[in-house]
Amino acid sequence: MIIVMNTRASEAQIDRVQKKLEEWGFGTHYSQGVERTIIGVIGPKKPGIMEFIEAMEGVDKVVPILQPFKLASREFQSKTSQVNVGNLVFGGTKVVIIAGPCAVENEAQMMETAMMVKKAGASMLRGGAFKPRTSPYAFQGLEEEGLKILDNVRKEVGIPFVTEVVNPRDVDLVARYADMFQIGARNMQNFTLLKEVGKTKKPVILKRGLSATIEEWLMAAEYILSEGNFQVVLCERGIRTYETSTRNTLDLSAIPSIHRLSHLPVLADPSHGTGKRHLVAPLSKAAVAAGADGLLIEVHPDPESALSDGPQSLNFDAFEALLTEMMPIATAVGREI
Amino acid sequence: MIIVMNTRASEAQIDRVQKKLEEWGFGTHYSQGVERTIIGVIGPKKPGIMEFIEAMEGVDKVVPILQPFKLASREFQSKTSQVNVGNLVFGGTKVVIIAGPCAVENEAQMMETAMMVKKAGASMLRGGAFKPRTSPYAFQGLEEEGLKILDNVRKEVGIPFVTEVVNPRDVDLVARYADMFQIGARNMQNFTLLKEVGKTKKPVILKRGLSATIEEWLMAAEYILSEGNFQVVLCERGIRTYETSTRNTLDLSAIPSIHRLSHLPVLADPSHGTGKRHLVAPLSKAAVAAGADGLLIEVHPDPESALSDGPQSLNFDAFEALLTEMMPIATAVGREI
Amino acid sequence: MIIVMNTRASEAQIDRVQKKLEEWGFGTHYSQGVERTIIGVIGPKKPGIMEFIEAMEGVDKVVPILQPFKLASREFQSKTSQVNVGNLVFGGTKVVIIAGPCAVENEAQMMETAMMVKKAGASMLRGGAFKPRTSPYAFQGLEEEGLKILDNVRKEVGIPFVTEVVNPRDVDLVARYADMFQIGARNMQNFTLLKEVGKTKKPVILKRGLSATIEEWLMAAEYILSEGNFQVVLCERGIRTYETSTRNTLDLSAIPSIHRLSHLPVLADPSHGTGKRHLVAPLSKAAVAAGADGLLIEVHPDPESALSDGPQSLNFDAFEALLTEMMPIATAVGREI
Amino acid sequence: MIIVMNTRASEAQIDRVQKKLEEWGFGTHYSQGVERTIIGVIGPKKPGIMEFIEAMEGVDKVVPILQPFKLASREFQSKTSQVNVGNLVFGGTKVVIIAGPCAVENEAQMMETAMMVKKAGASMLRGGAFKPRTSPYAFQGLEEEGLKILDNVRKEVGIPFVTEVVNPRDVDLVARYADMFQIGARNMQNFTLLKEVGKTKKPVILKRGLSATIEEWLMAAEYILSEGNFQVVLCERGIRTYETSTRNTLDLSAIPSIHRLSHLPVLADPSHGTGKRHLVAPLSKAAVAAGADGLLIEVHPDPESALSDGPQSLNFDAFEALLTEMMPIATAVGREI
Repeated sequence: MIIVMNTRASEAQIDRVQKKLEEWGFGTHYSQGVERTIIGVIGPKKPGIMEFIEAMEGVDKVVPILQPFKLASREFQSKTSQVNVGNLVFGGTKVVIIAGPCAVENEAQMMETAMMVKKAGASMLRGGAFKPRTSPYAFQGLEEEGLKILDNVRKEVGIPFVTEVVNPRDVDLVARYADMFQIGARNMQNFTLLKEVGKTKKPVILKRGLSATIEEWLMAAEYILSEGNFQVVLCERGIRTYETSTRNTLDLSAIPSIHRLSHLPVLADPSHGTGKRHLVAPLSKAAVAAGADGLLIEVHPDPESALSDGPQSLNFDAFEALLTEMMPIATAVGREI
Repeated sequence: MIIVMNTRASEAQIDRVQKKLEEWGFGTHYSQGVERTIIGVIGPKKPGIMEFIEAMEGVDKVVPILQPFKLASREFQSKTSQVNVGNLVFGGTKVVIIAGPCAVENEAQMMETAMMVKKAGASMLRGGAFKPRTSPYAFQGLEEEGLKILDNVRKEVGIPFVTEVVNPRDVDLVARYADMFQIGARNMQNFTLLKEVGKTKKPVILKRGLSATIEEWLMAAEYILSEGNFQVVLCERGIRTYETSTRNTLDLSAIPSIHRLSHLPVLADPSHGTGKRHLVAPLSKAAVAAGADGLLIEVHPDPESALSDGPQSLNFDAFEALLTEMMPIATAVGREI
Repeated sequence: MIIVMNTRASEAQIDRVQKKLEEWGFGTHYSQGVERTIIGVIGPKKPGIMEFIEAMEGVDKVVPILQPFKLASREFQSKTSQVNVGNLVFGGTKVVIIAGPCAVENEAQMMETAMMVKKAGASMLRGGAFKPRTSPYAFQGLEEEGLKILDNVRKEVGIPFVTEVVNPRDVDLVARYADMFQIGARNMQNFTLLKEVGKTKKPVILKRGLSATIEEWLMAAEYILSEGNFQVVLCERGIRTYETSTRNTLDLSAIPSIHRLSHLPVLADPSHGTGKRHLVAPLSKAAVAAGADGLLIEVHPDPESALSDGPQSLNFDAFEALLTEMMPIATAVGREI
Repeated sequence: MIIVMNTRASEAQIDRVQKKLEEWGFGTHYSQGVERTIIGVIGPKKPGIMEFIEAMEGVDKVVPILQPFKLASREFQSKTSQVNVGNLVFGGTKVVIIAGPCAVENEAQMMETAMMVKKAGASMLRGGAFKPRTSPYAFQGLEEEGLKILDNVRKEVGIPFVTEVVNPRDVDLVARYADMFQIGARNMQNFTLLKEVGKTKKPVILKRGLSATIEEWLMAAEYILSEGNFQVVLCERGIRTYETSTRNTLDLSAIPSIHRLSHLPVLADPSHGTGKRHLVAPLSKAAVAAGADGLLIEVHPDPESALSDGPQSLNFDAFEALLTEMMPIATAVGREI
């Protein structure tokens, strides 16, 4: 942490800052420039200190030097984490394809989808039993009934599934059924939920919040990691910008950025990230080319009658064609599908 | 809802859309323009329908006509709602001033603050017992201990208090102590929490999410209203933009916009909205001039040693001066403080 | 400027940075922390240096200490600048009201408007002769014909006018007629235009760019100042955000922020800032309460038939009522209208 | 265009809207719903009409049906345009690689760069002679001297070049030297410049503005097309968002979106789009996978001593490796490099 004093800071103000820092056990050293005094602060970061100092008189700004996330950082662990769900590995050579409908509607739909996506090459099924919806009047999901359907489908088809958890109270319930948790964008800073999921040992996909910075996203991961659950996979799903022609703006630079800052694997969700079916294939390819460790793709046997998010779902043929088209791209970046 | 077909939509595609609409019980009427067909859809809005149609072949776009929020809308209730907390009225002539520290730290701090802000003219005390913090390593609040402190202070000083609830599990606990709930920006779309709070009869301040549109914000209020709790007060607290010189961008146009769209009272929080102490006074005045029904202002006996959010807290003298300076502005817009 | 080295930066990398800095004539001093080396750089800022260093191996980040704007800064001149247009003073006690239509349409319209707004209390007329329009098919302004109309109206009514200049080639032409230049949001970083206007001695209103930070805005002002023209008045007119219910998001915190960072006067334009007629009055009041040195308000004798920007124009009655309502607010903040 | 009336619009208000539309020669037809009246408007779009109507009393909103751009639209021309610069084709099978430094510094630098990038597989050289810089104190380019250097290098090395034009006055000058104009992000809505470039017959790269929607970007292209110059190539270069870890957010979904809406070829600029050297390679690959018709990549013989934008430039080895790595990706999407 570096403290930049005002050009007009008085001696007394500078002394007061120094005294506070010493009270807190920090080392300091001064640099008297032509125009202003700068104070370097030495010692382990403590939460809230920076804001205290910034509020003191004579202080112009406080500049953090260290990243606020620790367990999630590449400096903490230089090797990319491998997160295992059964035999499936996130963060390995294989680009993991997770596919399925936005919401679980009924067993027939899920069974058909599961068989199809598995055949086409997907490794994991997705489907929401609990749906966070903007409107209280929209379909909110089948809840435990949906989890049971997913469980039956898994047994029948032999494919693991990931499903969203939205309520801290449901963490145990979802954990009994699911192979992997998903924490959605709207809950990225639902810290109660993050902690509950952190107390389990089950792998979790943590989606980026709609307006979360990369730093805030890694801090959210840190909540899970700091509770002892290191099985965290991140997922870029588009951020909110002024552009309205797509539902969100898929920030693909987040993928190599995360790889540089953190050891956690990172997926992309081009279905939610764009909200438009015709953009799913080009953005899926782009995500793999940018180094994504996997993809979440919405697939629906009949997208035109889906109960939610129809406009961004692929049908089976389009999904199968996409996987085939992505193979050489995966190869080109040293991966496989 | 109006459906705009593609310039190259086939007869068959148009028929298919019409058939679907009829299946769902909608009336339709066609308008064949020079360049394209437009289908008007008549009947009550059903959730998800719009997305289904948008996914059909030949459809260019679907245009919603009605606002998705109902109970929160000014069309549902033309008179501004008055939300009562004891004798205190939100949405009346008086601009309600809520003041206090960001977090409850100890009883002495709260007692001193409560006495002072009451004396200066505040009608309600604020203070967080549960703090949603970006970092798991930051101070998370005193929890029930903090609620007890607030309770003692209320008894002693005679001022009601509002405090944040972050976990659906804690709704009953917080309800036992607090005069009013606060739902923070990060939880604006924590639908589980909204529903739980909606099931109580206790008044609630619903802060705008960091990147929530006004429509999404009113839909979040709709979650609470639709559970039967009509005691909802909104609070603008700044949105996330590209500008970094302030912590958020306080969107004061939201205040008259909400007044036009909704009957719910709306407050402003210039402390969180700007994140800078020297901006609190001018933006407080601006909010009152723009028609805010109240203000949330961070006040701290010693802002430089506050455990969180110090840089945006006013000290007692500055708070007292601000209330005095705002009086003629309130008068100018037909209100009082 | 402070240079933060990587935790794994080698001795050789640190030496290389130091050598470069010495080559450029900077003093340096080192601080070897537990985790990383930090280099303080002493000496006058030179453009581009920061980026050079950031690109060197072993460097984690470079932190600027000084603001990049000089002549525009409050540190350069602690007293607020007063910009004079005839007897009119921007930056004095009086809140300057500038009113008129978006575009000059014909002499009758301007004459009527000028008489009315002068009578109501406006000190300056606005009206565009050159209109930057998103579509090449939209009305582009009357050009020199429009300037002549404004000139006649000024002579007849006795009110100075400000008008936009969009082309560096037209600076002399506009200067011959106008009392004050306006540089619009889209041209805030049209550096050629800024320099041309800087070479004149005529006062100029510089609007904030649609997505300009406060720092970039002050840097744009610096272009004009550095050419020798110190008659610069800034104008906040709304920034682009994700919110679509208003045309832009009027950032009123920019007003006190500019007052703190710079000595230049700053206006607000609630008409363009909101794009909605019913928001103009509350946001005008809010801007005055926040300390604006003046307002740009669109007024049109018949807003419903205006050739551009009709939806945000006030008619005469609404404008007159607004000025009356703002007077006590101006008084409350130590100003007059 | 569809006009949605207020729920409480009076008969008289509805009649007034209808009368206005008839005055302007539009056909109308009414749809009286349960809750409100909707008016469909039939006839060719005229600029400004929508805004007029929106300002009328009783009108809730006006919904545009047709896209505002015409000559740029895929509906106007269904086949992708091919823009030729000598033998070079934008919009054909080949992904066009344009490389070079941000600014022309001296002849030796450009000669070395040109030879190297040509050898590695680039088809066109880039280099700025006129530089739009945020600070008036930053290096502004060598101007005509820079154009002469580029001219010499072209003769010597045999590679065409593109260079930025920032001043309408310089269009003829730049046209005498350059093979292709570039209009930068800051000038995307410098309509004077767009028209001047539209009057030439020289191909032009039009970069997306920092906060331009896709629609505004296509409208800017429309300015050039409507003057008779159809040789327009678009370039996505990152948009401004709240995220600060990258300089801009490269919006790769813009590439397939543009391909759907428009017949104009579209490039990506991952150097400016990210501002970070380590992100250039992954985002270049992603852009090609997403269907980009070409790439603009900053290459510098010695990025660490570049006069501007050093942190995002590749050195020769990195550039050569990147082209090799992209080949199989281009092949995978039916292109070549």
